[in-house]
Amino acid sequence: MMTKDDLHGYVPAIVTPFNAKGEIMEEAFLEILEALIANGATGICIAGDNGESWTLSPAERGRLTRIAVDRAAGRAKVILGCSAPTLAGSLAYARQGEENGADALLSMPQTYVLKTTRDELLRRFSGLAQGTRLPIVAYNSPRRSGLNLSVADIGAILDVAPVIGIKESERDFFHHTYLLEALRDRMSIMVGPCHYILPGIALGARGFIATGPEFLGRDAGRLATIGKEKPSAESASLHFKLTRIYELLMGTATWPAAFKAALNLIGLPAGVPRDPVAPATTADIDKIKAVFDRIGVSYGK
Amino acid sequence: MMTKDDLHGYVPAIVTPFNAKGEIMEEAFLEILEALIANGATGICIAGDNGESWTLSPAERGRLTRIAVDRAAGRAKVILGCSAPTLAGSLAYARQGEENGADALLSMPQTYVLKTTRDELLRRFSGLAQGTRLPIVAYNSPRRSGLNLSVADIGAILDVAPVIGIKESERDFFHHTYLLEALRDRMSIMVGPCHYILPGIALGARGFIATGPEFLGRDAGRLATIGKEKPSAESASLHFKLTRIYELLMGTATWPAAFKAALNLIGLPAGVPRDPVAPATTADIDKIKAVFDRIGVSYGK
Amino acid sequence: MMTKDDLHGYVPAIVTPFNAKGEIMEEAFLEILEALIANGATGICIAGDNGESWTLSPAERGRLTRIAVDRAAGRAKVILGCSAPTLAGSLAYARQGEENGADALLSMPQTYVLKTTRDELLRRFSGLAQGTRLPIVAYNSPRRSGLNLSVADIGAILDVAPVIGIKESERDFFHHTYLLEALRDRMSIMVGPCHYILPGIALGARGFIATGPEFLGRDAGRLATIGKEKPSAESASLHFKLTRIYELLMGTATWPAAFKAALNLIGLPAGVPRDPVAPATTADIDKIKAVFDRIGVSYGK
Amino acid sequence: MMTKDDLHGYVPAIVTPFNAKGEIMEEAFLEILEALIANGATGICIAGDNGESWTLSPAERGRLTRIAVDRAAGRAKVILGCSAPTLAGSLAYARQGEENGADALLSMPQTYVLKTTRDELLRRFSGLAQGTRLPIVAYNSPRRSGLNLSVADIGAILDVAPVIGIKESERDFFHHTYLLEALRDRMSIMVGPCHYILPGIALGARGFIATGPEFLGRDAGRLATIGKEKPSAESASLHFKLTRIYELLMGTATWPAAFKAALNLIGLPAGVPRDPVAPATTADIDKIKAVFDRIGVSYGK
Repeated sequence: MMTKDDLHGYVPAIVTPFNAKGEIMEEAFLEILEALIANGATGICIAGDNGESWTLSPAERGRLTRIAVDRAAGRAKVILGCSAPTLAGSLAYARQGEENGADALLSMPQTYVLKTTRDELLRRFSGLAQGTRLPIVAYNSPRRSGLNLSVADIGAILDVAPVIGIKESERDFFHHTYLLEALRDRMSIMVGPCHYILPGIALGARGFIATGPEFLGRDAGRLATIGKEKPSAESASLHFKLTRIYELLMGTATWPAAFKAALNLIGLPAGVPRDPVAPATTADIDKIKAVFDRIGVSYGK
Repeated sequence: MMTKDDLHGYVPAIVTPFNAKGEIMEEAFLEILEALIANGATGICIAGDNGESWTLSPAERGRLTRIAVDRAAGRAKVILGCSAPTLAGSLAYARQGEENGADALLSMPQTYVLKTTRDELLRRFSGLAQGTRLPIVAYNSPRRSGLNLSVADIGAILDVAPVIGIKESERDFFHHTYLLEALRDRMSIMVGPCHYILPGIALGARGFIATGPEFLGRDAGRLATIGKEKPSAESASLHFKLTRIYELLMGTATWPAAFKAALNLIGLPAGVPRDPVAPATTADIDKIKAVFDRIGVSYGK
Repeated sequence: MMTKDDLHGYVPAIVTPFNAKGEIMEEAFLEILEALIANGATGICIAGDNGESWTLSPAERGRLTRIAVDRAAGRAKVILGCSAPTLAGSLAYARQGEENGADALLSMPQTYVLKTTRDELLRRFSGLAQGTRLPIVAYNSPRRSGLNLSVADIGAILDVAPVIGIKESERDFFHHTYLLEALRDRMSIMVGPCHYILPGIALGARGFIATGPEFLGRDAGRLATIGKEKPSAESASLHFKLTRIYELLMGTATWPAAFKAALNLIGLPAGVPRDPVAPATTADIDKIKAVFDRIGVSYGK
Repeated sequence: MMTKDDLHGYVPAIVTPFNAKGEIMEEAFLEILEALIANGATGICIAGDNGESWTLSPAERGRLTRIAVDRAAGRAKVILGCSAPTLAGSLAYARQGEENGADALLSMPQTYVLKTTRDELLRRFSGLAQGTRLPIVAYNSPRRSGLNLSVADIGAILDVAPVIGIKESERDFFHHTYLLEALRDRMSIMVGPCHYILPGIALGARGFIATGPEFLGRDAGRLATIGKEKPSAESASLHFKLTRIYELLMGTATWPAAFKAALNLIGLPAGVPRDPVAPATTADIDKIKAVFDRIGVSYGK
């Protein structure tokens, strides 16, 4: 059973490679999985926003989990995204995780409804915990869910559900500070986005679930260690580079089109997005190349 | 075939009454439908956010459409909500509308993805138009979708898809102003929220799709006329009342829990919300009663 | 003594015309004053933000008041701006108003400090009221002052200071609605910005202090009447035009550079701004002309 | 002549102690100055927002500078605040700095006007540089000035004016990141607020101008060193403590009332604020004590 101590370091949210017909390219998916593990990933999140969760059926989530678990073969934990508006929706995803060997589930609070009372929030996490035997990683993404989990909310969730950690994507560093101060011993706090990785680790975060380190090669796997060491020219340089990459991917096309295009550039076969997201345009790709040239990310073509 | 001229006046978004087990109460639904028509509704939106769209399967949407169409029997148009992250998702809902006699579809741009390029946006609306023979009403709800349709976006949508109107829920009156200025002749602009109903109609909006008029009785059906008349103590009073109601419902519990509780108070059997929304608490209901007392909405208990 | 009933209709905030050396051009100021009165102004605000208050010494404010009062000769009320961080600063301006015949003072709450307790707020307005015999018009400009007066704040101010009215520049129409509902009988509510003039008057505002009507000629003086009449093609057209003008002036150069340039275009000798605001550039002026061409404002060159 | 290398470490913005009559208490001011130097301050900012700049005349600024320079006697640099809406206003303050021995000036861009073109911005800083022989420290406080200096703006200012450093108070860590990446070699970047002190120093900031370290005693003077060392339980603890203090002072009463009350609690005679800021209430002081108890700041009564 995965515990909070197993959730640490570099835990990327993997893309789901689709071909032009919108079909999942399983071999490509596994090739990316291998690359992430080779670069130091201790865990892989499937069917997160990077994985275009909004297009994936329960069966597809199950299949991705199965092939990831088989391929990882214990080298990295496999965490399946199961966010949904309703608990029934989340549990349908959770079952796929259970049946296919996932190590944990990643879940936002109820999506789409934009508001929850404390009671509704706790009902969701306790309901999820009761409905599955898998450990749960909470996911706080105020921009995506419209809900902003406070430190008090997260503490209350911990009291009712065996949540082992949190992927924290809030942009306000007051929040990271208070969360780390209050709860770093009770759960594994995994920080993001990129510009909070090193500052967060210095303050007690266990690792990071963030998009951007994919372009650092083996340095991605070293970030959790670097963040605990004396600041250096290298750590500053990695921080600047990560922040630029994140800004680039966030500011170009519709997420995760630019991320997929950038992965393709560095030789990872991410394919194209599914409807409703269109592939990055030539102009988008040129912009990515220009930034990569400037910050020193090498790419193939 | 419903045209832009058929979309006008009072077009409420109806709740879906659920019992404590989460089952749809069809008779209650039809009773509310009758009340809305009696109060002057010219159309009814099914499976909008008020209808807890996020919990409704395609089959449930089809069934609600069927019984509404049968009961309305031409007295009011029936518009089915079909917003979804993917086009395939929207088309699955649209088919239910077609098969069960809906007069039109109501659709946000792609939900959940938070960002679209112009191209992606047009692909959604043209894809929806090509995939269904029903007329489309666009729905702009920046808070709900995370996407803010500009007047230029809406104009571009009109160029590629036979959109007959728009439910506009933007909060910035600059937007309403520019939208009405530019497009009021090409489509039926239906304004909301409540505090923009009368100002919007004075400027050329055809009507309103907004939550709040349900509590005005037959005055709801008169608003579209009142908004075109000389301002009076009555019109100001209705404006103040509508704004207070909207603020109350929006500021109490998780949408649409307070709305359902308030409908129950005035004798319309709205039942309770489905998971993940909890019913309004006693404290919430007391707050609703206190505001109703102050603004003069009579209720049963 | 000016009362709330004397504050109504079209009350423009006049610019202070400077020459290239930064000197006040008194004749130009009086020429603009005459034009505003000719177009229907019932009052004139001097040393507001349009008048570049931040550059005007007490003596300059006194002089402008004196020549305005002499020229208006009772045809329009003269209201002097006296906002400042400290009460002593406001009172220094107020004395100039008293000594030079102003009819009233216009005052924001304490500027620059960004926050006030209720007690500090009331001390400012009661201190101002005790320190001057002139009536006070409050000015709520959250963007400018960093302070957002709530309806409850404004009601509390009315309880401690003989405030006759308010210039309301909040952008959120909820606020206008609640303010008009609660306090329209206790004070003269003068609305702005432009896109809330007609909607506000329909709901009981007495008039408007807003930048934009200057470009409507004699229609400016008719707006307060038009807003109380049955909506028409003309009223919608004026609303659209005003909103376009306001957006243009607000979105071009640093306030009030574009406003001054636009006045110069229609033949009113507004001169140039004082440091730190630079004159509108040729590109700015071309943009103004292009919008004027589109919306039908005629100009000289 | 002070250079960028002289601007580093702990540079507090000192309060101006007033008595109940609003008079400056010079002995109290010097006592606080001594305490700050004893705790490691390498410079002192006079007449910043902490000093209630909005209430201080040029003569008062000169006098404070004079006594601070005499007392510091080279142990700490003295930096005088000279922000104002107009250049003439800033220069009047600058002259006081020159005549009284200040080492540098601290200046926001033009206050109150809320918007500047690039040209206006450069005119301000080049005008200030030409009008004084003292080195300039720029101050970016988007919340206070309404202006948000971009990294490109700051680079452009460096090209036209001999700015030796910047006090950076932006809340968005993207900004700190890009600023440090681009300009840390051309100027001394002094970070704030409190929760960015240690993360900023790890990335190349030279020091901090921030409110909060006053309550850390001699640890204040060690922060700039600690931030460059390997993260530890102590550094995390100081970060959490600083963030709590800043949140407390910012969230209580009107700035700097709570700061003054808190200084009084730890035995530094900060007196009371001047109009328009009221002294902290008993409830405010109890709140401060409660937080101090929780985070371990000892105080006298």
